[in-house]
Amino acid sequence: MERIKITEDLSFSRIIHGFWRLADWDYTKEETLSLIEHDLEQGITTFDHADLYGSYKCEELFGEALSLKPSLRDQMEIVTKCGIVIPSEQRPQHRTHHYNTSKSHILESVDQSLKNLSTDYIDVLLIHRPDPFMDPEQVADAFTQLKDAGKVKHFGVSNFKHHQWSMLQAHLPFPLVTNQIELSAYELENIEDGTLNLCQEKKVPPMAWSPLAGGAIFKQGDEKADRLRAALEKVQGETGANGIDEILYAWLLTHPARIMPIVGSGKKERIQSAINSLNITLNHDQWFEILHASMGHEVP
Amino acid sequence: MERIKITEDLSFSRIIHGFWRLADWDYTKEETLSLIEHDLEQGITTFDHADLYGSYKCEELFGEALSLKPSLRDQMEIVTKCGIVIPSEQRPQHRTHHYNTSKSHILESVDQSLKNLSTDYIDVLLIHRPDPFMDPEQVADAFTQLKDAGKVKHFGVSNFKHHQWSMLQAHLPFPLVTNQIELSAYELENIEDGTLNLCQEKKVPPMAWSPLAGGAIFKQGDEKADRLRAALEKVQGETGANGIDEILYAWLLTHPARIMPIVGSGKKERIQSAINSLNITLNHDQWFEILHASMGHEVP
Amino acid sequence: MERIKITEDLSFSRIIHGFWRLADWDYTKEETLSLIEHDLEQGITTFDHADLYGSYKCEELFGEALSLKPSLRDQMEIVTKCGIVIPSEQRPQHRTHHYNTSKSHILESVDQSLKNLSTDYIDVLLIHRPDPFMDPEQVADAFTQLKDAGKVKHFGVSNFKHHQWSMLQAHLPFPLVTNQIELSAYELENIEDGTLNLCQEKKVPPMAWSPLAGGAIFKQGDEKADRLRAALEKVQGETGANGIDEILYAWLLTHPARIMPIVGSGKKERIQSAINSLNITLNHDQWFEILHASMGHEVP
Repeated sequence: MERIKITEDLSFSRIIHGFWRLADWDYTKEETLSLIEHDLEQGITTFDHADLYGSYKCEELFGEALSLKPSLRDQMEIVTKCGIVIPSEQRPQHRTHHYNTSKSHILESVDQSLKNLSTDYIDVLLIHRPDPFMDPEQVADAFTQLKDAGKVKHFGVSNFKHHQWSMLQAHLPFPLVTNQIELSAYELENIEDGTLNLCQEKKVPPMAWSPLAGGAIFKQGDEKADRLRAALEKVQGETGANGIDEILYAWLLTHPARIMPIVGSGKKERIQSAINSLNITLNHDQWFEILHASMGHEVP
Repeated sequence: MERIKITEDLSFSRIIHGFWRLADWDYTKEETLSLIEHDLEQGITTFDHADLYGSYKCEELFGEALSLKPSLRDQMEIVTKCGIVIPSEQRPQHRTHHYNTSKSHILESVDQSLKNLSTDYIDVLLIHRPDPFMDPEQVADAFTQLKDAGKVKHFGVSNFKHHQWSMLQAHLPFPLVTNQIELSAYELENIEDGTLNLCQEKKVPPMAWSPLAGGAIFKQGDEKADRLRAALEKVQGETGANGIDEILYAWLLTHPARIMPIVGSGKKERIQSAINSLNITLNHDQWFEILHASMGHEVP
Repeated sequence: MERIKITEDLSFSRIIHGFWRLADWDYTKEETLSLIEHDLEQGITTFDHADLYGSYKCEELFGEALSLKPSLRDQMEIVTKCGIVIPSEQRPQHRTHHYNTSKSHILESVDQSLKNLSTDYIDVLLIHRPDPFMDPEQVADAFTQLKDAGKVKHFGVSNFKHHQWSMLQAHLPFPLVTNQIELSAYELENIEDGTLNLCQEKKVPPMAWSPLAGGAIFKQGDEKADRLRAALEKVQGETGANGIDEILYAWLLTHPARIMPIVGSGKKERIQSAINSLNITLNHDQWFEILHASMGHEVP
């Protein structure tokens, strides 16, 4: 599988597997291990996590599977996140839903993630959401300490807009390596407001969450979804793809920003759709027909 | 006529003549040549084109006139654009309306423009619209190749906002020299959203399209137009101008950003209005009275 | 009182006293002097003015008090502003309300401010509002001349957004030292649109005007005010503060951007509330509960 260079010493697989809903899949450790091994065989080596996925349980479920075969760790890249605090049975000390990007919170969160994931390093740690209460100096201190300790190799952000990126970057002694943002043909906000341009400007490949728009595209009575589905089906016919999900992936993959879609399913056939889409290249007419269908009008 | 320095080796006339509607004017080659010569006599030496004006016909009509007297080429600056694709009888290969800023499209478009315009170089080439599917590396490759070949002297953009400008500039080995944007006392978007500030920040003089707001100012039943017309007429009285069109030009010309209005008419008397406006300087009261009329309220 | 470093050679008191409404307080010179001395005893040494406060009368009222005891000048920092023009009996030459940031206007305004304030230097001069008609070169010329003459030590802005800040800064030979912006738990615009992030990015401490939202928080029938008041009262109970105004100040003071609230009251007990709030530190739960109440929803 194509790989995307993140830094001099790190690359990601073009398709990333996200374990957001691992706790819902109800897999045994062995089944999770089998899924991981299936991914690796297909060339999907980059795995996306966050401390709070599954109400703070997903990282540990992944770690338990990995600990059955620790040698796999060197064949994969692990991304995880911190910075959102939610009340949870797993975190009785959490009173309310808020963000916390203080130095102590970041350090504690990473130590817990390392333990949960059964690993001694994270490849890329992301600040999960732009925190209006952020002290960028504290984030910089935490990042530097984690990097020096070898606990985290590189750092990035998620859902950051221009001014949030610039503010944090201005305080860091090393460059942020990615921005994980919502990107799909259905949800154009990060294209329209210049967040994708920011990634291109900084030469930072973005990770795309909800590349299939989380099913919104199949909503009945949603005119945008109806328009978009029709355009996707037309292009599916032209390209011989197996389904419109492959066209949705291909729409992102054909874009020059080196977008890395995160597949959120635990089913091998769904993962296969994303892999298949790597062989589909949309031409300009097709790419814009899909864009126009989503916007509801043509570009000026 | 006042000239605006664009680069060390290039200046534009303060008033620019745009040939957007040349195909509609129904001029013979000789009449077009006469118009060009009239412009040059008045000091208007900068001519604005785009590949697709007049459904891809305007450049050629201009080139045919210029080829009657090729010696005029050295007395003028030619701006043209590429990047928008529209279906047209002149371009049977175009299936849909979209943008194309790929390297191959830019190179082909410029070769065609050179041929159409009967010239062997373009002074400034603009990317016509910010392309959400842009690969800035391809644009940079195309620009570099065109510059090295002597086909294009300098490069700019049109209708670019901050993040689009920054993204493209980050990939270019030389500075963009202008941003052609919609600017008029009626249409304030590029003033209100900071695009004009961007030009001032980068010390890049903007070209203004639709400086007279394309007639919107005479629309009946448009409250904004009514308010603005009243303010313009008041200032016309105070300055002794011949018409509110001169005040509309003067409102842009008095602004410190070194705005270069593009006159879109083929009639000599309309061009004369723009030239007349160079002698009108609005004071602060007048400039803000017009702004306030357009906004519908005073500044805070 | 805590002090905030503005430059190598200048610091402000964390709480700033604003004299916006000095003309309304109806104080004798001696009463104003007593208020100034009270401030200085409490450690409030930074005083905020603008040329046009009190229809151009406040600076002079302050200066008359200061001239009773000129030795106080060295114990304080004076901030004033220019750039807004309003019709006033004090300025019969002003025809209309507009902005003027021309070199001559800035120079004349500062000379008048120096005279009015009975001082021979201003610590920080701010451009009061982003001027759409600004010539940043003229501002730079005026600032440089004022700095060289020793009339103004440092320069900043007020109510500037990103693109306005970047434009002006790009023309200045020295860094802007502050941005005085509207900031309160009620009015979140400058937090939500990234203006506060800009201050953090540039490592420039912002001055906050209307830190108590000018009484909006007590409006009946305003759902936002009702929600916010309830949250503030809850936190007041938890912290043992004397009133919700102290929590409003603490919400700004706890933020890591080193926000300096401007107290706009002439009453010593109101000034005391701001001083008291320096001892209140909100935790993450409290800070976000107030934010959520103001927004009407939780962060994502």
